[in-house]
Amino acid sequence: MKILVLNCGSSSIKFQFFNMDNHEVMAKGLVEKIGLNGSQLKLNKANGEKVIFEGEIVDHKIGIEYVLGVLTSKKHGCINELSEITAVGHRVVHGGESFSGSVLITNEIISELERCIELAPLHNPPNIKGIEAITELMPDIKQIGVFDTAFHQTMPKHAYMYGVPYSLYEKYGIRRYGFHGTSHRYVSQRACDILGVEYKSQKIITCHLGNGASVAAIDKGKSVDTSMGFTPIEGLLMGTRAGDLDIGVVLYLMEKENIGLQSASTLFNKHSGMLGITNISSDARDIEEAAEKGNEKAQLAMKMYDYRVKKYIGSYTAAMNGCDILVFTGGIGENADITREGICSELNWLGFDLDKSKNKDQRGKEAVISTDNSRVKIMVVPTDEELMIAKDTQKIVDE
Amino acid sequence: MKILVLNCGSSSIKFQFFNMDNHEVMAKGLVEKIGLNGSQLKLNKANGEKVIFEGEIVDHKIGIEYVLGVLTSKKHGCINELSEITAVGHRVVHGGESFSGSVLITNEIISELERCIELAPLHNPPNIKGIEAITELMPDIKQIGVFDTAFHQTMPKHAYMYGVPYSLYEKYGIRRYGFHGTSHRYVSQRACDILGVEYKSQKIITCHLGNGASVAAIDKGKSVDTSMGFTPIEGLLMGTRAGDLDIGVVLYLMEKENIGLQSASTLFNKHSGMLGITNISSDARDIEEAAEKGNEKAQLAMKMYDYRVKKYIGSYTAAMNGCDILVFTGGIGENADITREGICSELNWLGFDLDKSKNKDQRGKEAVISTDNSRVKIMVVPTDEELMIAKDTQKIVDE
Repeated sequence: MKILVLNCGSSSIKFQFFNMDNHEVMAKGLVEKIGLNGSQLKLNKANGEKVIFEGEIVDHKIGIEYVLGVLTSKKHGCINELSEITAVGHRVVHGGESFSGSVLITNEIISELERCIELAPLHNPPNIKGIEAITELMPDIKQIGVFDTAFHQTMPKHAYMYGVPYSLYEKYGIRRYGFHGTSHRYVSQRACDILGVEYKSQKIITCHLGNGASVAAIDKGKSVDTSMGFTPIEGLLMGTRAGDLDIGVVLYLMEKENIGLQSASTLFNKHSGMLGITNISSDARDIEEAAEKGNEKAQLAMKMYDYRVKKYIGSYTAAMNGCDILVFTGGIGENADITREGICSELNWLGFDLDKSKNKDQRGKEAVISTDNSRVKIMVVPTDEELMIAKDTQKIVDE
Repeated sequence: MKILVLNCGSSSIKFQFFNMDNHEVMAKGLVEKIGLNGSQLKLNKANGEKVIFEGEIVDHKIGIEYVLGVLTSKKHGCINELSEITAVGHRVVHGGESFSGSVLITNEIISELERCIELAPLHNPPNIKGIEAITELMPDIKQIGVFDTAFHQTMPKHAYMYGVPYSLYEKYGIRRYGFHGTSHRYVSQRACDILGVEYKSQKIITCHLGNGASVAAIDKGKSVDTSMGFTPIEGLLMGTRAGDLDIGVVLYLMEKENIGLQSASTLFNKHSGMLGITNISSDARDIEEAAEKGNEKAQLAMKMYDYRVKKYIGSYTAAMNGCDILVFTGGIGENADITREGICSELNWLGFDLDKSKNKDQRGKEAVISTDNSRVKIMVVPTDEELMIAKDTQKIVDE
């Protein structure tokens, strides 16, 4: 079975094409600058070769035509005909309270996705465009939706409700949804596979630390809490997002700086986080470099970053009354040994005992990095959301 | 030595008069509705007698004249002359970054307090009015300022900074300050006194749970983190305050409901928290009663309340890499056994082992309520901010 995975953004389409017999990635790439000058498709072939196709890609439908074109291209393709594609899996950002798992997309599902646009006005519309383009181009193919929010739909109500009037939950769906669900699900399951333990017997904390970042508490296979909330700004410090912040600060700054909602949103989403503290970069590698050279704000930002993750680990250990496995993933979680060490330092009272030598220089590979005696297994598990989407797609097609 | 403690609010003055030889409260009471119809002074005498004095109390100066009048009154007073009062201690809400301890008030200090008005526009002005009134009425008396924020000034920078542009810290002092400092300091010290352990050797988490509520992490006698932040809205769920909330919710609701800053502030400060969730009351006792009768929103609100405190306990245990003593105080913390049980249930993995029978019906009295084998001592310690202010005042006068 061959499955195409699509992740459609407002001006981009990420794609990955799997042979599910062996989980081999037959091709992957990115369509970028859709509707803008300089639109192009970048293809990474299975043999490592990279090819760029320039063209006037004015909308998502033409973008997907490009994708299907390169997959079947004589020179650069990996299949002869589109009919070799069994199904298409779509990443969908927000499934609201309607979706607690991946689904076969039907007209009813599309209507439901449209109702969720309110909750993710930037993300859901391009997701829907991608689905509609495939429907036009391959009318008979099965399409599956895999939601960033779905995994967290198992949170208990006392974990997902906020301390605002209940009527606002009823009127607007104001509650914690959480994101990165596909990643948290993948790495938590994978960690159990690696350790050879039963997923549904474990208490797991997963730290997805990338440019966006979130922590999840997974008890017996179910997400019971996560740090991102109604929007992806809550929780950890991120590249440019503030994370947890006294809401009094928002109101105070809007008044003092005399700014409106749009500017406030830009301030806290685009100019805050690691970038805001350091005024250097939103990229953890740049900040690590500056910190090594003695830049005090970079050092502060790294300490703040680590401290906030550490506090969530403590918080979720309390929430689950224990932790068996702590998993690091995402660009920073997989690669930044210094960040993992900062987070796990002086955490042994709670049973987290990092083996510094195992942690050091451990980058991008699956590994256990706790000491043999650590009460909690600490692991690095590179995430693979596309494979998870492909697997979900395969499973639903097989049903 | 006799000390008068004053807590001046916008339309009220709480007072308590101590004989510091034995810490006896010689008189206490409340001036209320200052500048409003029905203004009056309520006096509680040491013998238990209660007296109400009605009058036109148009401002804080007249309010304090009433206080001094009753203290020296032939019929209801406890001293003959004002000269018997050695010093006056004032509760001051916000000391910004200028005050990390209690201080003798001078003209320079008053100027500094005026600079802090920006940070606490509702609270600091009446505090200053109280100081000025005493200066007029008893020009030679020593006055001491005791700050709600001072105890938390020991927080490390990575704990008090937010993930917003650093320039906003420099420009407006945007950072975590924390409140209830006098209470957290009193109960943490008192807990060590009761247990006979050295304050500076202990890791302590104090939960001040009243209508306002905050948690503090106190490591070796120093506050290292606390849940209230730039303003007293952050952190725990409170009677009418939202506590921790995705800032994206604030912006979303302001847009959808088309409300301005003032309405948003009212929504999140006055109509949220326990009241907002239940639509019953902001009072924990009413909610407990409704929950017992099966009201689902009251049950939800109580679970949310407990869960949030539990998560902070985990968070601060991680922050300090351990905890020796957990203290409950404040109206709810001292009295609500059901809340203490909810918070501490299933927390034994982290070393918190509540003795349910010791906890049950334990109200308003100092007590150890953990099992003998609990790794962490769990305690109830009724707070006494006024005594703490009086002690600080005595100490500075003695210097």
